[in-house]
Amino acid sequence: MNTYGLAFRVTVFGSSHGPGVGCVVDGCPAGTEITQDKIQRELDRRKPSSGIGTPRAEEDLVLLQSGVHENRTTGSPLQMFIENRDRDSSKYAAFKSTPRPGHADYPALIKYGPGHDIRGGGQFSGRMTAPLVAAGAVAKSMLAPMRIKFAAYSQAIGGVRDEEERVLLDVEDKVYDRPTRAATDKLDERMRAEILTAKEDDDSIGGVVRCLVEGLPVGLGEPFFDTLDGELAKLLFAIPAVKGMEFGSGFKAAGMRGSQNNDVYYFEEGKVRTSTNHAGGVLGGMSNGMPLDLKVAFKPTASIPKVQRTVDLGTGKEAMLKIEGRHDPCIVPRAVVVVEAVSALAIADLMMRGGYIARTC
Amino acid sequence: MNTYGLAFRVTVFGSSHGPGVGCVVDGCPAGTEITQDKIQRELDRRKPSSGIGTPRAEEDLVLLQSGVHENRTTGSPLQMFIENRDRDSSKYAAFKSTPRPGHADYPALIKYGPGHDIRGGGQFSGRMTAPLVAAGAVAKSMLAPMRIKFAAYSQAIGGVRDEEERVLLDVEDKVYDRPTRAATDKLDERMRAEILTAKEDDDSIGGVVRCLVEGLPVGLGEPFFDTLDGELAKLLFAIPAVKGMEFGSGFKAAGMRGSQNNDVYYFEEGKVRTSTNHAGGVLGGMSNGMPLDLKVAFKPTASIPKVQRTVDLGTGKEAMLKIEGRHDPCIVPRAVVVVEAVSALAIADLMMRGGYIARTC
Amino acid sequence: MNTYGLAFRVTVFGSSHGPGVGCVVDGCPAGTEITQDKIQRELDRRKPSSGIGTPRAEEDLVLLQSGVHENRTTGSPLQMFIENRDRDSSKYAAFKSTPRPGHADYPALIKYGPGHDIRGGGQFSGRMTAPLVAAGAVAKSMLAPMRIKFAAYSQAIGGVRDEEERVLLDVEDKVYDRPTRAATDKLDERMRAEILTAKEDDDSIGGVVRCLVEGLPVGLGEPFFDTLDGELAKLLFAIPAVKGMEFGSGFKAAGMRGSQNNDVYYFEEGKVRTSTNHAGGVLGGMSNGMPLDLKVAFKPTASIPKVQRTVDLGTGKEAMLKIEGRHDPCIVPRAVVVVEAVSALAIADLMMRGGYIARTC
Amino acid sequence: MNTYGLAFRVTVFGSSHGPGVGCVVDGCPAGTEITQDKIQRELDRRKPSSGIGTPRAEEDLVLLQSGVHENRTTGSPLQMFIENRDRDSSKYAAFKSTPRPGHADYPALIKYGPGHDIRGGGQFSGRMTAPLVAAGAVAKSMLAPMRIKFAAYSQAIGGVRDEEERVLLDVEDKVYDRPTRAATDKLDERMRAEILTAKEDDDSIGGVVRCLVEGLPVGLGEPFFDTLDGELAKLLFAIPAVKGMEFGSGFKAAGMRGSQNNDVYYFEEGKVRTSTNHAGGVLGGMSNGMPLDLKVAFKPTASIPKVQRTVDLGTGKEAMLKIEGRHDPCIVPRAVVVVEAVSALAIADLMMRGGYIARTC
Repeated sequence: MNTYGLAFRVTVFGSSHGPGVGCVVDGCPAGTEITQDKIQRELDRRKPSSGIGTPRAEEDLVLLQSGVHENRTTGSPLQMFIENRDRDSSKYAAFKSTPRPGHADYPALIKYGPGHDIRGGGQFSGRMTAPLVAAGAVAKSMLAPMRIKFAAYSQAIGGVRDEEERVLLDVEDKVYDRPTRAATDKLDERMRAEILTAKEDDDSIGGVVRCLVEGLPVGLGEPFFDTLDGELAKLLFAIPAVKGMEFGSGFKAAGMRGSQNNDVYYFEEGKVRTSTNHAGGVLGGMSNGMPLDLKVAFKPTASIPKVQRTVDLGTGKEAMLKIEGRHDPCIVPRAVVVVEAVSALAIADLMMRGGYIARTC
Repeated sequence: MNTYGLAFRVTVFGSSHGPGVGCVVDGCPAGTEITQDKIQRELDRRKPSSGIGTPRAEEDLVLLQSGVHENRTTGSPLQMFIENRDRDSSKYAAFKSTPRPGHADYPALIKYGPGHDIRGGGQFSGRMTAPLVAAGAVAKSMLAPMRIKFAAYSQAIGGVRDEEERVLLDVEDKVYDRPTRAATDKLDERMRAEILTAKEDDDSIGGVVRCLVEGLPVGLGEPFFDTLDGELAKLLFAIPAVKGMEFGSGFKAAGMRGSQNNDVYYFEEGKVRTSTNHAGGVLGGMSNGMPLDLKVAFKPTASIPKVQRTVDLGTGKEAMLKIEGRHDPCIVPRAVVVVEAVSALAIADLMMRGGYIARTC
Repeated sequence: MNTYGLAFRVTVFGSSHGPGVGCVVDGCPAGTEITQDKIQRELDRRKPSSGIGTPRAEEDLVLLQSGVHENRTTGSPLQMFIENRDRDSSKYAAFKSTPRPGHADYPALIKYGPGHDIRGGGQFSGRMTAPLVAAGAVAKSMLAPMRIKFAAYSQAIGGVRDEEERVLLDVEDKVYDRPTRAATDKLDERMRAEILTAKEDDDSIGGVVRCLVEGLPVGLGEPFFDTLDGELAKLLFAIPAVKGMEFGSGFKAAGMRGSQNNDVYYFEEGKVRTSTNHAGGVLGGMSNGMPLDLKVAFKPTASIPKVQRTVDLGTGKEAMLKIEGRHDPCIVPRAVVVVEAVSALAIADLMMRGGYIARTC
Repeated sequence: MNTYGLAFRVTVFGSSHGPGVGCVVDGCPAGTEITQDKIQRELDRRKPSSGIGTPRAEEDLVLLQSGVHENRTTGSPLQMFIENRDRDSSKYAAFKSTPRPGHADYPALIKYGPGHDIRGGGQFSGRMTAPLVAAGAVAKSMLAPMRIKFAAYSQAIGGVRDEEERVLLDVEDKVYDRPTRAATDKLDERMRAEILTAKEDDDSIGGVVRCLVEGLPVGLGEPFFDTLDGELAKLLFAIPAVKGMEFGSGFKAAGMRGSQNNDVYYFEEGKVRTSTNHAGGVLGGMSNGMPLDLKVAFKPTASIPKVQRTVDLGTGKEAMLKIEGRHDPCIVPRAVVVVEAVSALAIADLMMRGGYIARTC
């Protein structure tokens, strides 16, 4: 349902065209420093980049309405609310009978019946990732004193792939200055062009987000079922449009030999390290102390201006559909901060569950 | 931890070299037909195939010790126990100081300390998949009257890839007559050869398992967090050696245009269908009624006969390690039934949660 | 933590002297009729009765901010917010060093440290019962079409005890017209007098709330642990000031003979009934179809005007404490609707879990 | 369902007349000392006392089958199994149509249908408390190094009430030498007589168990819902035959004045204490550092030799029922160790959740 986590919990609520969206974050130890500014800064990173994103005016101002007193958590849950401002619901009524291809409309209508609020995709809207980013900002603030850092970037957009093996230091923060969240200015330019071409074709494209996490304690993760990779995967698939996930060498590992893929151990200044990181930082469902390295595949935006075939559930006949409105031709740049956020949420819960962060004073 | 599920729950216990492994399955409605034979048949599909698997003699006889009376569930939890017979623990003591590359040894030692039972990998052993298969057999029995069917097969082993777009009917049952669980005899032969070559090289290989599920009700899955794809992903990453996952077009979707990747709707005998299945049966975290299509990447077996570099945690120096013992050069063939089983577990829980199966009489 | 329930979930947030209090309610099937009016009506029943309650002006206007569209649930979570208006936090600073007897101050300060928001009791305030009542109103609306009804009343206030064995019809609704929520006008007068006497003595009194629930399906409750009585008990003890609970003959049963206490079965118009209801409607953790009959003991209000001894945590010396402010001399009348509400929450979750209410269309 | 706990979890399985009963205990930190002997000693305390208990020969030998290696936990779950030996199922067939008054038969038959295993009460049997005691022994072993101690005793049996305010030191261990688990030899004799009189009358009696717990950290408990008292209450109501619960002054508090009931603070050797313990050690759902003091009311044994009225569900007519077999005329003496065990389970989970015990090395 709409709550994730056992010891650090986030509950999301709201829908795209209601009064607003928001979340409740529970389990953050009392005394953690949290400021509305930090949360807002993360939310701002989710905004569409000028030129390549939707022209919808989403201000996304976050209201922190409980759980924090004088910039410190009190031990009671945090509630955050983001008002919906620029709503134009007029175009959605039709989709109740003619579901949009690639969207949740059809299964949602069957599941929730006529009560389903289809406006803007309702509870399935990409807008639901705004409260995730807000909650993720809280998780990051909680993890920061443990020196746990997150850095994600666009590794591929459409046909443009970044083949470089980058480390966290290379991408940290700087990517948010680039509209496409690419790792270099050159790639940014090429990815930008890729998006604009798709847009001109009345079409959309997908891509891959890579996320690196450093500073995790060795052993993080709760086998057998609540593994580090499994919990991350569960949360990452909750992001709309995600269709694939891998850790380390991922699908490539399937074609490798054991002698290649095994990461051998050595000592570096007294610390156990591996010479390669094909494992992507996870062994047996636990962190092995190497950087966490995950990749998430996003499908192209389902809303495209092109006319599409669909069915009319009312008449039982086939129908044609044209989606009006202002949509991102590629959601990958906006998804980068979302991937960081949900990674932080999964890790925050496992950190609390594993007792790595003190619950009580 | 070691329990999965909210409304249909499985708890696993045991370790590779203790008295046995087993599970408790809770939430199966009273009156469901369950026979020890059916469970045993599934477990037998997990046995190593002669020639290409480990020569360890694992009989894996399941004991159904509670929750079933006269072949019907009573409403109380089922407990199943599988005795460990062929245990040779002598070779594992060394790994407490020299962790095996690619295994859980190192993070487990840090997490659990000297108490960690490293024999056979302990609770991280591939042997823990035996109770998963037993629990999955219960889930399948519960889902069978709803006409929900599962069929997995080896889509790739090492360099041999099965590029055909197969449907459930093509592979159902028949794959278990082939040692490699390939979809055709020809592929079976080539995959077999691939495994034997790796074995001769004192090495190991990985592969990809594809699993198809038909018969899911439209709308199955609990957004926002407990999605159909997310729950499957979480459980699939709990299988040792899994490094990647995708649904439908998966990572390929990242490079496609929206107009290509969107599955358009049409009517087939009054039923809503899509002309392609790039979504892999999942939209917005819910089943859209098309076949569920997932792929799981397995890394090559970590235990290889080749000498490997590692560290000696006792002396703080680097060390060389040779893993003796009898290991599968490729675990993919044995993993096929495991992928089916955990898929059934995730779906059983969501079916119960969604109220698609009556809990009570 | 601050979330209750598996299939029907409520998450509370807020604190007494922050911007407001509220809750998120998840799991209510799409299409359930919910109006802000109904919720407000229940909240109004929690207001202090003129004369015997606190003179604080709490308007408690509920804002329903998500999950409902055109008076029907959409299937996404409901969020409700109640602004705090009449806050006077000036008097609370002292309690950080001199904890109030009978309040949560001392353990909360130890648990949450200086971050604990002590103003108004923070997250331990009786004010947190306002969102519970709002959530309970949703649960009641969901259960109403199943003809499940709740009726609670003040069975004892201080020394005045209502010894009559009343049934739901006797008390339904009417009690909310009486300031003390007594079952008759006569008792109301006596209980009122009891409260006023305590008030005049600068003191407070407690009491007992009895709650009757009719219409539960036989078999409701999930043994072994998630029993009907156990889930109710857990939730009822979450209400501030509750110190005891019993079902049916309760503590009296301890002194009875089996032949007296066993409720014998008979048929009434084809329905199985018991001639007595010592079980209070629960057998083996499940509803037996007879009215649920529970009693909850409330301690006297901890905040009294009398000077009290306490410790000064700063100086390590003993100290005297005088609590200013406007407090209810008896919270029992206001707790009546809270007991109904949390009973509805526990039952709503078990109804959803047991599949008695359809989750999906 | 059959699993309790978030961070320290117990799952029970089995039924009275199947192969056995047992449990899985998860979340115990690796390295905890656990011996089969200690667990067995606790189980022996649950045995019927000669003369006043059932003459059934229950040996209740526990088999510890996973999670412990060389008397230390490994970090993987513990599984314990207790074989059923002395089963005589012949007498239970009749109860499928003529449910026993005071037993779970009727709601269980409605809930689980003909699949319900009614033999010996199936999953509702008092025998299910054996695995609870085994799991409780693990919890106690885990809590012992924190100096957390449990001591329960029979405070009332039928009309014999122990009115003394006893402390833990008075009753610790010694009560298990007395057949009735009374606090003194004199009370033991009177309670014994009370039981024998009931037995001679072909009847049964109930009683009250009081449980004291010392050594809890101030602040233990997770408000708002997962409170110390609420979690204990939930688990205690899972014990068959429990009908009431109170903490500290409990129902008496309802009739007290605030000035009497408030426990005032003072310093004792630098430690904050209260001069009375009307709170029973709980304020705001958290431990306040004073001894936890809870009382549990047990109804008289439902199985009595007397002929009772009931209904015949097959014929739709009323019927007479005579329960043969060997039943305890009073289950209170055997319940004493069960109350200790489940208290330990609830506290163990809250201790792990609160981070008071290190999860990982």
